[in-house]
Amino acid sequence: MDAVTDSTDTPPLDFRSDTVTRPDQHMRTVMADAEVGDNVIDTDPTIRALEERAAQTLGMPSALWTPSGTMANLVALSTHLRRGDRFLAPRGAHVLVNELGSAAWLAGGMPDLLDHDAGPGRPSPEAVRAAAGGTGPYYTLRTTLLSLENTHNAAGGAVTPPDEHARLVAAAREAGLRVHLDGARLWHAATALAVPPAALTVGVDSVAACFSKGLGAPVGSVVAGSEEFVEQARRMRQMLGGGVRQGGVLAAACLLALDRVDDLAADHARATALAEGLADRGWDVVPPQTNIVLAGVPDVNAALDTLRALGILVLPMAGKVRFVLHRDLTDDDVTEALRRIDAGTGDGTPSPA
Amino acid sequence: MDAVTDSTDTPPLDFRSDTVTRPDQHMRTVMADAEVGDNVIDTDPTIRALEERAAQTLGMPSALWTPSGTMANLVALSTHLRRGDRFLAPRGAHVLVNELGSAAWLAGGMPDLLDHDAGPGRPSPEAVRAAAGGTGPYYTLRTTLLSLENTHNAAGGAVTPPDEHARLVAAAREAGLRVHLDGARLWHAATALAVPPAALTVGVDSVAACFSKGLGAPVGSVVAGSEEFVEQARRMRQMLGGGVRQGGVLAAACLLALDRVDDLAADHARATALAEGLADRGWDVVPPQTNIVLAGVPDVNAALDTLRALGILVLPMAGKVRFVLHRDLTDDDVTEALRRIDAGTGDGTPSPA
Amino acid sequence: MDAVTDSTDTPPLDFRSDTVTRPDQHMRTVMADAEVGDNVIDTDPTIRALEERAAQTLGMPSALWTPSGTMANLVALSTHLRRGDRFLAPRGAHVLVNELGSAAWLAGGMPDLLDHDAGPGRPSPEAVRAAAGGTGPYYTLRTTLLSLENTHNAAGGAVTPPDEHARLVAAAREAGLRVHLDGARLWHAATALAVPPAALTVGVDSVAACFSKGLGAPVGSVVAGSEEFVEQARRMRQMLGGGVRQGGVLAAACLLALDRVDDLAADHARATALAEGLADRGWDVVPPQTNIVLAGVPDVNAALDTLRALGILVLPMAGKVRFVLHRDLTDDDVTEALRRIDAGTGDGTPSPA
Amino acid sequence: MDAVTDSTDTPPLDFRSDTVTRPDQHMRTVMADAEVGDNVIDTDPTIRALEERAAQTLGMPSALWTPSGTMANLVALSTHLRRGDRFLAPRGAHVLVNELGSAAWLAGGMPDLLDHDAGPGRPSPEAVRAAAGGTGPYYTLRTTLLSLENTHNAAGGAVTPPDEHARLVAAAREAGLRVHLDGARLWHAATALAVPPAALTVGVDSVAACFSKGLGAPVGSVVAGSEEFVEQARRMRQMLGGGVRQGGVLAAACLLALDRVDDLAADHARATALAEGLADRGWDVVPPQTNIVLAGVPDVNAALDTLRALGILVLPMAGKVRFVLHRDLTDDDVTEALRRIDAGTGDGTPSPA
Repeated sequence: MDAVTDSTDTPPLDFRSDTVTRPDQHMRTVMADAEVGDNVIDTDPTIRALEERAAQTLGMPSALWTPSGTMANLVALSTHLRRGDRFLAPRGAHVLVNELGSAAWLAGGMPDLLDHDAGPGRPSPEAVRAAAGGTGPYYTLRTTLLSLENTHNAAGGAVTPPDEHARLVAAAREAGLRVHLDGARLWHAATALAVPPAALTVGVDSVAACFSKGLGAPVGSVVAGSEEFVEQARRMRQMLGGGVRQGGVLAAACLLALDRVDDLAADHARATALAEGLADRGWDVVPPQTNIVLAGVPDVNAALDTLRALGILVLPMAGKVRFVLHRDLTDDDVTEALRRIDAGTGDGTPSPA
Repeated sequence: MDAVTDSTDTPPLDFRSDTVTRPDQHMRTVMADAEVGDNVIDTDPTIRALEERAAQTLGMPSALWTPSGTMANLVALSTHLRRGDRFLAPRGAHVLVNELGSAAWLAGGMPDLLDHDAGPGRPSPEAVRAAAGGTGPYYTLRTTLLSLENTHNAAGGAVTPPDEHARLVAAAREAGLRVHLDGARLWHAATALAVPPAALTVGVDSVAACFSKGLGAPVGSVVAGSEEFVEQARRMRQMLGGGVRQGGVLAAACLLALDRVDDLAADHARATALAEGLADRGWDVVPPQTNIVLAGVPDVNAALDTLRALGILVLPMAGKVRFVLHRDLTDDDVTEALRRIDAGTGDGTPSPA
Repeated sequence: MDAVTDSTDTPPLDFRSDTVTRPDQHMRTVMADAEVGDNVIDTDPTIRALEERAAQTLGMPSALWTPSGTMANLVALSTHLRRGDRFLAPRGAHVLVNELGSAAWLAGGMPDLLDHDAGPGRPSPEAVRAAAGGTGPYYTLRTTLLSLENTHNAAGGAVTPPDEHARLVAAAREAGLRVHLDGARLWHAATALAVPPAALTVGVDSVAACFSKGLGAPVGSVVAGSEEFVEQARRMRQMLGGGVRQGGVLAAACLLALDRVDDLAADHARATALAEGLADRGWDVVPPQTNIVLAGVPDVNAALDTLRALGILVLPMAGKVRFVLHRDLTDDDVTEALRRIDAGTGDGTPSPA
Repeated sequence: MDAVTDSTDTPPLDFRSDTVTRPDQHMRTVMADAEVGDNVIDTDPTIRALEERAAQTLGMPSALWTPSGTMANLVALSTHLRRGDRFLAPRGAHVLVNELGSAAWLAGGMPDLLDHDAGPGRPSPEAVRAAAGGTGPYYTLRTTLLSLENTHNAAGGAVTPPDEHARLVAAAREAGLRVHLDGARLWHAATALAVPPAALTVGVDSVAACFSKGLGAPVGSVVAGSEEFVEQARRMRQMLGGGVRQGGVLAAACLLALDRVDDLAADHARATALAEGLADRGWDVVPPQTNIVLAGVPDVNAALDTLRALGILVLPMAGKVRFVLHRDLTDDDVTEALRRIDAGTGDGTPSPA
C-alpha cells in the first residue's frame, strides 16, 4: 500500500456519480437572488417558471417540481398504476433496482422485466407486445404501463434514438399501455443524439427528468405530463411529503442548470477518453454512449477497494464498476485517473482480491 | 363444424384445471358430519386437526388453514417481507403472474425474476446467489426472500428434486435470504419423485399447499412454518378477511383429500398418455413430469376456440395451451379427447386461426 | 369457587357471539347435496343462486359472496376509497375497531369518527354534513365515503330506522359522499323494525351482510352494489385470496340461513328477557333493541372471569360485557344463566376483581 | 366594496401561515456560502451539522433532515407502525387532518381520536389509558403509538407544559405505547413556556420539528430519535423520495433559523395584540398561547371573502378563521389589519355571507 499513499494525499477523483457536483459561484448567486413564495398554499414564482420551462423543453403540457428523481418516478407510477397492475420495464431499470422497491409497495405495481433484446438498455417493440399480453378474465393480471429509461443507467448510459422510442411507444399504445419515461438523464440522451429532449418524449404520458444529475443543480427534478396528470401528481407529491415552501431557491439553480445542457458533450468526450484509456490497459469496457463507463472486473468489491486506495472513487453497478463523468471532473482528471491506475497496479489492471 | 356438433352434445371434457373437481359422495358425507367450532374466537376442532396433520405431513412445526392458495402465499409473503424488500422467484411463478400483483402492492415486495437456467421451472443455486447480491448501503435494495414453486405450474408442472431443492435453499441461506415454497401442488411433486412431501420442504421458512388442486377438496389450503410464523400469519389472515367460523365443514374435506395423495400417480400416467397421444399427432409437447401438459401452438386463442368447438376445455398458460389431468377425468376421457381431436381436424392438429 | 364447580361440570352457556352457532342436521344435508362448480374460472351455481337471492333481498342490483364479513367490508371500502380518502363512521364501528385496521392500511382510508349524537349507534345528518366539510384546495383531505352500521354492534345491537337511514344517506349525498352500509346484522335490524331488509339499504352504494351471524350458516357473507361495483369487488376479492372453488357447499348453507330470518324475533325476545333479568338483579343494562345485551360493570376483566367461573361465556365490548343471543341458545338457557348468576354471587352481581 | 378598494391597492397582509416567510438577505447569504456534499451517497456536511445541532436542541440522540414536516411525521409513523396498528392522536391533529391521510394508507395506522378533555389541544392521561386498552387476542386491534402535537395547530397553537407532557408520556408507556411528538412548532411551545425545547420531548421515541414554520427557513424539517430509529427513518426517507443531494444549501438556512427562536416571543406578543383588538371589536376569540389566533365566525367562507376584500389573507381551520403571526409581519401590520377591519365593516365585524 505504500506506493498508493502518495496519491491519496491529494483529494480523490470522484467518479461515483454525476450527482456529486457542487454548485459553482454563479449558481449560488442565482439561488441567493431567487424570487420565492409559499409553494404549498400559493405558487413559488421561480418554481413556476422552472415548471413552465421544463414542460416546454420536454414537450409536455405541464410539469411539476419534485425534490428528487426518485420522487418524480414514484409520483408518476403512483398516478398511473392501480393496485396490482403489472408494468413493464427493461431489466435493471432505476425504478426496479434503485428506488427501494417503492414502485411495488407504494405505487402498487407488479413489474415484468424486459430483456435488452434490441441493444443495451433497449427492449424491442416485439418484446413489449409479447409481455403486454391481452385482456384476460377478471382473475388475471392486468398490464397497464410501460416504463422506459433513456439514458439507461445500468446499461452504461445507453441511449434510445427517437425512431426506436417511437416504435416502443407505438407497441405500448397498441397493447393499451400507458408510457412513462424515466428521463433522469434525458439531457444526456438528447446531447448524444443531437436532438432536442422533446424528440425523445413523443407519445409518452409522463416523463421524469433530473437537474442534479450532470447539470449541476444541488436538488431537484420534474415530472411532466398532461394538465390532469400534473393535478393528480401534485396531490401525490404532497402526500409523500414533497411539497415545500420557498423552493424557488432550489428552482433557480435548476433553471440555470437547463442553460448548461450544452456542456454535457464535453462529459461524453471525457467518458470516451477514459474508456479508451482503460481499454488500452486491457480493461473490459465497451465504448460509452454518454457520460457513463462500465468496466467488467473479476471481483467488483476488490476492484472498488483497489481503486479507492489509488484515490479513485467509483460505485458498483450491475455487477461491474461504474465511472461517471460530470462537470466537476476535467480532462486532466481523466488523465490523472489513468496515471494513478498505471502507478498503482504496474500494469494498469485492478488486482484481484 | 358439422362433424364437431356431435361431440359437443355430450358434456365437454374439462382439462382447464385440477381445481374443477367436484367433491364425491364420501367427501360430502364427511363434510356433513364434521365437528365444528368458531375458528375466530375459538378453535374449530376439525380445522385444528387438519392443521396438525398438514404440519406433520409437510414437516413443519405448525400450519394455518386458509380459504385459498392465493391467500396462503399472500399471508406468507406479507409476513416475511418488509416494505420494498426484493424477493426472488422463478420467472412465471404463480405469486408473480397469477395472484393479481398482491405480492407487490399488498405484501410489499419488489420481485426479481430468476431464469429457469437449471431446467424447466428451476433456477440454479448460482442464479440465486448472483441475484441476491450482498448487503449495500442504506439506499440500496434489500433482497430478503427466495420464493420457490414445486411443482412449477407455468413450466408445465415441473418438479424440483430434493437434492436440488436443498442446494437452492442453501444458496438462499448463505445469502441471508428466507425461503418460501409455493407448494400448491407439492403433493404432485412428491408423488412424481416418490418421496414424502416433507422431503421437499427441508430448510424452508414457510410452505403453502393446496387441497383443492388435484386432491378434490372444494375449498382450502394451508400455510405452514414455525410457531412464531403461524402466529403472525393468523393475524394477517384475519386482516385479509380469511378468518372463518365453522370452517370444519371444509377442513373435513381437506383431511380426506390428504388420504388421496396416492391417487395422483394415475393422473400423472394419464398426463403422459395424453402427451404421447398429442405428440403422435404432431403436437409440440414435452413429456410431462406430473399432471400438466403444455402444448405449443401457432395461435393460442385460435387453438382454444378449436378445442372448445370439439368439446375440449383448456386454458392458456405461458403462451401455450395447458391440459391438466385430475381425479374427475378417466383413462377413457383421455382417449375420447384424442378421438375428438382426430375427428375435428382430420389430422389431429388444431387448425390455425 | 366450590359453589361454582357444579355449574361448570355442565357445558358453559355461550353468549360470546352469534357466530358460535353450529349448523344443524338439515343445514348439513343441504350443504352435502349442493350443486357446485369452480367459482374462480367458472361460476359455482349455488354461489350464483345465493348472490342473486341476496341481491334481491337487499334491494341491490348485484351481490358477491365472500368468506367473511371482514372481507365483505374490506372489499367494499377498497373499491370506494382512493389512497388517503377520509371516510366517516360512527365511533366504535366494526370497520374501525374490529377489522385490525385494514380499512386504513389496506383500503387506504383515513377515518373520521362520528359521535352517536342522534341515539345509540346513530350519528345525526347534521354531524355527517359537518364532518364531510366541503371541497378544499389540492393539499386538503378529501372526504368521500360514509360508512354506516345497522345494527351497530358496539352500541349494543342498536338499530337505525328507515327514515333516519334515509336522512343520513341524503346528508351524505348532498356532501358528495358515497355510502357503504355494514349490515352484518341487517337481518336483525329489519326484524326489530318489522321492515324488509331492502328498506334499510335505500340509497347506499354498497352493503355487506353476514350469514354466519345469527342466521346459523358456518361460513359466508355477501357484499352487494351496482353491477360495476361488483365487477371491481370480484377482482379485489380475488386479490385478497377470497376467491374459492366449489364454494357452493357453503353457499347452500347461506341460502338456507336466509329462510331463517324470521327466527331472529325469538332471539330478540330472549335478549329482552335476559336484560330484564339482569336489571332485576341490579345490573347496569339498557333494554336491548335486537339480540345484543351490553352490561356495564365496574371491572370488565373481573366480570369476565367471574362469569366464566359460573359457566357463562361472554366477550368484552366497548368497555362493557356483551351477551349475544343466537339460535343455539334457548329460553331455558337464559333462565339457567340467571340462575347461575344468582347461585354464584349470592346477590346476582358479578363480584369486583 | 368601494371603501375596500384602497386597502387592496397595497399588498395584502398575509396571516395565512407562518410558512409564508421569505428568507432575508442574511439567510440568503449563508445559503449561498454553504459547504455541501452528496447527501445520498455521502453526507452533506451542512445537513450533518444541522442534524447534530437539532438532535442536541431537541434532546434526542440523533436527527434526520427532511424536505417537509409532512415527511418528517410520515417517516416517523411509518417507522413506528406495523400494518393496521392503532395509534392515538388528539382530535384535529395535523397527522390526522392535514397530511392527506398518509398516516393511514402509507404508514399503515388506524387512528383513534382523543378528545381535548384536559384543555385545548390536550387529551388527559386517563383518556390515553382508556383508549390504549390492553392486549387482546390475535383478532383484536393492537394500539401501539401515541402521537402528540405541541403546539397543537388546530386548537389555536395551544401548548402542553412539561409536567403534563410527562404525564401523557407516562400513561402511554404504562400502556406499552411508543410516543411520537409532532413538534412542527415546538419552538413556539418552548418560547411560550420559557423552557428549552428538550424539556418538551422527555420520554418520546421520536419528534418532528420544522424550520419553515415561524423560523423563516424556506425549506426543511427534522425528525429525531434513537440512532436505530434514525437509521430506519433514513431508509424510509429515501423510499419516499426525500433523499436529496447538496441539501446543505437548505440546511444552512435551517441552522440560521435555529438562532432565531428568540424572535418568536415578539410574534406571540403580536398574536395577543391582534386577539385583543379583535375581542375589543366583538369577535369570538380566546387569548392565544403562541402565534395563532382562531376566531369563530358565523360563516367561515363569507368571512374569508370579506377579509380578502379588505386586504387581509387568512385560512380556515377547524371551522374557524385562523390568523398566524410570523416574522414577516410587524406590530404596524397588526395595527393596520385592525384598521382595515374597522374601515371595511364599519363595526369591525366580518359581515355575514
